[in-house]
Amino acid sequence: MNRLHRALDGLLARIDTPAPIVLADVMQDNIDRMQDFAVRHDLDVRPHVKTHKCVEIGRRQVEAGAVGLTAGNVGEAEVFAAAGFDDIFLAYPVWPSGTKGPRIRRLAGTTRLRIGVDNVAAIDALADAMGDEPDRLQVVVEVDCGARRSGAPPELAGDLARAARKRGLVPAGVFTYPGHGSSGRAARECAAQDQEAALTTAVRGFRAAGITAEVVSAGSTPTVAFSAGGVITEIRPGEYVFGDLNNSRLGACTDDQIALFVAATVVSDRVPGQVILDTGTKALGREGSPELGYGAVAGTDAVLAKLNEYHGFLALPAGADRLGVGTVVPVVPNHVCPVVINFEELIVTDSTGTALRRWPVDARGFLN
Amino acid sequence: MNRLHRALDGLLARIDTPAPIVLADVMQDNIDRMQDFAVRHDLDVRPHVKTHKCVEIGRRQVEAGAVGLTAGNVGEAEVFAAAGFDDIFLAYPVWPSGTKGPRIRRLAGTTRLRIGVDNVAAIDALADAMGDEPDRLQVVVEVDCGARRSGAPPELAGDLARAARKRGLVPAGVFTYPGHGSSGRAARECAAQDQEAALTTAVRGFRAAGITAEVVSAGSTPTVAFSAGGVITEIRPGEYVFGDLNNSRLGACTDDQIALFVAATVVSDRVPGQVILDTGTKALGREGSPELGYGAVAGTDAVLAKLNEYHGFLALPAGADRLGVGTVVPVVPNHVCPVVINFEELIVTDSTGTALRRWPVDARGFLN
Repeated sequence: MNRLHRALDGLLARIDTPAPIVLADVMQDNIDRMQDFAVRHDLDVRPHVKTHKCVEIGRRQVEAGAVGLTAGNVGEAEVFAAAGFDDIFLAYPVWPSGTKGPRIRRLAGTTRLRIGVDNVAAIDALADAMGDEPDRLQVVVEVDCGARRSGAPPELAGDLARAARKRGLVPAGVFTYPGHGSSGRAARECAAQDQEAALTTAVRGFRAAGITAEVVSAGSTPTVAFSAGGVITEIRPGEYVFGDLNNSRLGACTDDQIALFVAATVVSDRVPGQVILDTGTKALGREGSPELGYGAVAGTDAVLAKLNEYHGFLALPAGADRLGVGTVVPVVPNHVCPVVINFEELIVTDSTGTALRRWPVDARGFLN
Repeated sequence: MNRLHRALDGLLARIDTPAPIVLADVMQDNIDRMQDFAVRHDLDVRPHVKTHKCVEIGRRQVEAGAVGLTAGNVGEAEVFAAAGFDDIFLAYPVWPSGTKGPRIRRLAGTTRLRIGVDNVAAIDALADAMGDEPDRLQVVVEVDCGARRSGAPPELAGDLARAARKRGLVPAGVFTYPGHGSSGRAARECAAQDQEAALTTAVRGFRAAGITAEVVSAGSTPTVAFSAGGVITEIRPGEYVFGDLNNSRLGACTDDQIALFVAATVVSDRVPGQVILDTGTKALGREGSPELGYGAVAGTDAVLAKLNEYHGFLALPAGADRLGVGTVVPVVPNHVCPVVINFEELIVTDSTGTALRRWPVDARGFLN
């Protein structure tokens, strides 16, 4: 990961830390590689914007061949629709309370909008929200494949599709999230098998209801590699665009494919065996554990052993070079998604650290 | 905490979830109570804005009698200075790299600015940044009282004060953070004793150097109650303004004093014994542990047992009422500070849920 250090060296005088640095060339390679994989396996890519929340990156994903975008809430969908994206899947069991009903109806008037559902009450509420044009909204039935989160039992997918059709909504297909696949290659592969089985059952339910599941949509960066060759038509990876330590540990990316780090400055070195970086939970989130740490200096064994809000406790490995105050280091996060939302903008460079642009994190703060 | 439920009921049709709801009357009571305590014990209050990052709340704190504000980074200080606050202590060992040097100098031209230092290199760097007017910047020597974070050994405070004066900076006093006081009343009291001891040593060092420590500044919400009667002149509590479950567990606030919750909607109920709320790590941060949970429904035993980014797994206690999809509940966070920065604005009401205003989280995204 020495390229991260090299890129950082090129930027030093021009950035204030903490700052999220994106290597655009590494990111573009990640986007292209995912697209190549999908094309080879006849899958559509519908990247999840939760990871970057950045219109410019969404554009690159679509330019590379993505069929549309995935959003996690109405606000994200609105930001990307306003930027001209016209095919958005809100892969979440949205309950249209407050002003969300009218917002969803407005959105469905400007973009092809799909929304997740896993129960009849939500189908009714969405249909009510759509008023006299329920057929402008497509719903995608979420089924549970083992993550025990949201999602109906797969064998009920047909019933939900029928309930949606009865209310005039368009049942477009099924989706699931293999979130139980986050602990090693074998677990990822098993979760992907569960995913395929659940989606197959769900598609069969649609067929029995006389409805075609046009889209059969699957997560996620760690399981994508095992998602080809079956019933799946679409993948919704998010984290692949940047990568992070969690994905590296899972084998879902290499260290060289990590495209985002947080530039951090050593601000205090008064305690032997550690230095304090200016990256705490408000920059990195509290993603990690005392065992794993909460982020690491790229290419080293130095991990953040503890975080306060503005302080990162970097434990220095025995025999490591002392890091003096003022030293700037690249910190690779465990989980990249909660990092991006902490900042107004991404500092965009390349592996040489010469270019420097700033891309706004357009959908940050959009949570509902 | 039934008042939280009552306030929420009054707002339901007008808000989209997740949303951070502030009870202004409860918050004002918290502000006034802290001020009363300080007046009674002849202490200045300098609230830390990291908790609210909101100009309107800073105003209320100053109106109640705060001598100024505490900030955690240059960006926060800039936001509050631009809003007219003219006495800001940046209680952090800032290293003025990138553009921070010129930014600090600009700030010191418009507000009385104090900055923390714990080493000579930073003193030199700050003096360099101030150019020909180093005396416009006051520095406050940070000493460690046991948190093992930043801060010089207390017995070196005088040396640092002398180094600052030599460079033309104004050594204004000393500060510390008793961050090892976060586990029960006894530990808080011990940490407060450590704090008093460290600050006493540091003040003695100043005196030996022939320099007056004008300010002797202490943290923090959990230890404030034990900070009176000694060498301390100023307290820097932050979390007291809202309170949270961590402070309640510590005995640093009561449940009735909690002034902020996150309104959350049940979006899925397909897994027995749990429901999914639309509050995940991007709303609450990952503050907590599998044992404590990651937040709780106010006034109940229902805790968030697990979080994904947009999903909160609310475990329902045996025998609890089922929460149907669409139900909106008030979630009290474990740690309030990382919640506020996730949102563009605070929804402000009172215990009756009738008033409704929106206050921007002005300094969110300002991390450097």
